[in-house]
Amino acid sequence: MDQTGRAFVPGHVTAFFSPHPAQDPLLAGSRGVGLALSDGVTVQITDGDVVTLNGEPSEIAAVETVLAALDLTASVRIETPLPVGAGFGVSGAAALGTAFAATAASDRRRLADELVAIAHRADVEAGTGLGDVVAQARGGVPVRLAPGAPPHGRVDAIPARRRVEYVSFGGLSTETVLSGDTEALTAAGERALEAVTTDPSLGQVMETARGFVRETDLYTEQVSAAVRTVRENGGEASMAMLGETVFGLGTALSDAGFDPAVCQIHPGGAALEPTEPVA
Amino acid sequence: MDQTGRAFVPGHVTAFFSPHPAQDPLLAGSRGVGLALSDGVTVQITDGDVVTLNGEPSEIAAVETVLAALDLTASVRIETPLPVGAGFGVSGAAALGTAFAATAASDRRRLADELVAIAHRADVEAGTGLGDVVAQARGGVPVRLAPGAPPHGRVDAIPARRRVEYVSFGGLSTETVLSGDTEALTAAGERALEAVTTDPSLGQVMETARGFVRETDLYTEQVSAAVRTVRENGGEASMAMLGETVFGLGTALSDAGFDPAVCQIHPGGAALEPTEPVA
Repeated sequence: MDQTGRAFVPGHVTAFFSPHPAQDPLLAGSRGVGLALSDGVTVQITDGDVVTLNGEPSEIAAVETVLAALDLTASVRIETPLPVGAGFGVSGAAALGTAFAATAASDRRRLADELVAIAHRADVEAGTGLGDVVAQARGGVPVRLAPGAPPHGRVDAIPARRRVEYVSFGGLSTETVLSGDTEALTAAGERALEAVTTDPSLGQVMETARGFVRETDLYTEQVSAAVRTVRENGGEASMAMLGETVFGLGTALSDAGFDPAVCQIHPGGAALEPTEPVA
Repeated sequence: MDQTGRAFVPGHVTAFFSPHPAQDPLLAGSRGVGLALSDGVTVQITDGDVVTLNGEPSEIAAVETVLAALDLTASVRIETPLPVGAGFGVSGAAALGTAFAATAASDRRRLADELVAIAHRADVEAGTGLGDVVAQARGGVPVRLAPGAPPHGRVDAIPARRRVEYVSFGGLSTETVLSGDTEALTAAGERALEAVTTDPSLGQVMETARGFVRETDLYTEQVSAAVRTVRENGGEASMAMLGETVFGLGTALSDAGFDPAVCQIHPGGAALEPTEPVA
């Protein structure tokens, strides 16, 4: 590794989903809708063999798997303002950012979709995500119509650009939820996706998301109370899948008295950062 | 139309291509590689029925077709720093921006890929572009692997982010070139695409592009001389398909004594602009 590479990957909150397990991790994935966020993950690749997350040495299985798949040894510096394990797809973003940045720093270039497939497989194998990587590769308001990595999966998007606020009370274990009975989850997720593809608007996404969380009994007490408070103030909010996190549109959370982090829908997907002065 | 909508679409210079005509404009298109540019087209939709380009009343066939397909009447204000008809995909960008912005201003929402298909069809039918729209929907360095609108076409990308400079000496008629003998063009374009998918790097794109322009005899005297000057100064440049336009990477053109416009590879595709203050 004699060059450096730097990539930005948007965060991603899933509003609702249906899991689609498969033996082949490239075919496994999820369908559903979420928001790509301008609060995301920056990955810098340099010489070495240490992975750090916000300055602390860290082990992120999906990142190690990506480096192994690319047959590269490198130091990976991951920086993010997002809470980890709280439903923002940080591990998927770290994996995807590593794939982009490490390839840019190496002499063996690859097309973007191959890098997305490598990162998707790594995230699925690590059990840390089923659909974040393909959503983070697209950006905007990704609509995962068919599960899996490119070219198997299919991701469309809802054209929308809003301010987004979020508050996180902590993490939830993706693995615990997905190891339970997922039949009801799958049915609710499929119904939700049908509702949103019929009316692809952000208002429909938020209303459908709240119905999905209620039906699948995924609300925690704290998140349920926060969403109720926002709704009583006339705002749009729901729960991030899967974390004890509330996200809302516009000034929904601050209007209801919370002190949220503020970002916006990030229009693009994962991308390299410029390495020279640009106009 | 009682709401407004505003979209940004990157410009797009094609480095090389092969035309793939078809009866159905959704299947027609091109394969090839280009650069999406941060110099692009902004489209604002308001009440009315007038189309303006940089403040002047204008008739852009693809824009009219998009409005008709969406069954909307609107005023369309198109602003761009790019030269028109010089190989930057301005008409495709105007069509795609109109599709996004007009949908955002209406009550009938649609998924992004449907809007891309509507704009692609309009650009193909108007004879103003074969692959710009799908490239502008993806952003970055789009690699058009299969021709046509989604879900028929397939667009991958080369992960890259560079400063881009360009100088334009005028326009070339896309229709004239494409109405000639396109067999040699197609063969050269297919070979070029094979070379770049084998080594998906920007250096390979530029070298392959110059070979393509030589082989297909598309150089004008002025463009050929300019590219030669840049090469003698050690810079990377080639000719935009199809315009009398030279584009280069980094400071290639200014280093060679030209006074170029300066922008960069735009990492994202077409997107709505925020309508509220965002973080």
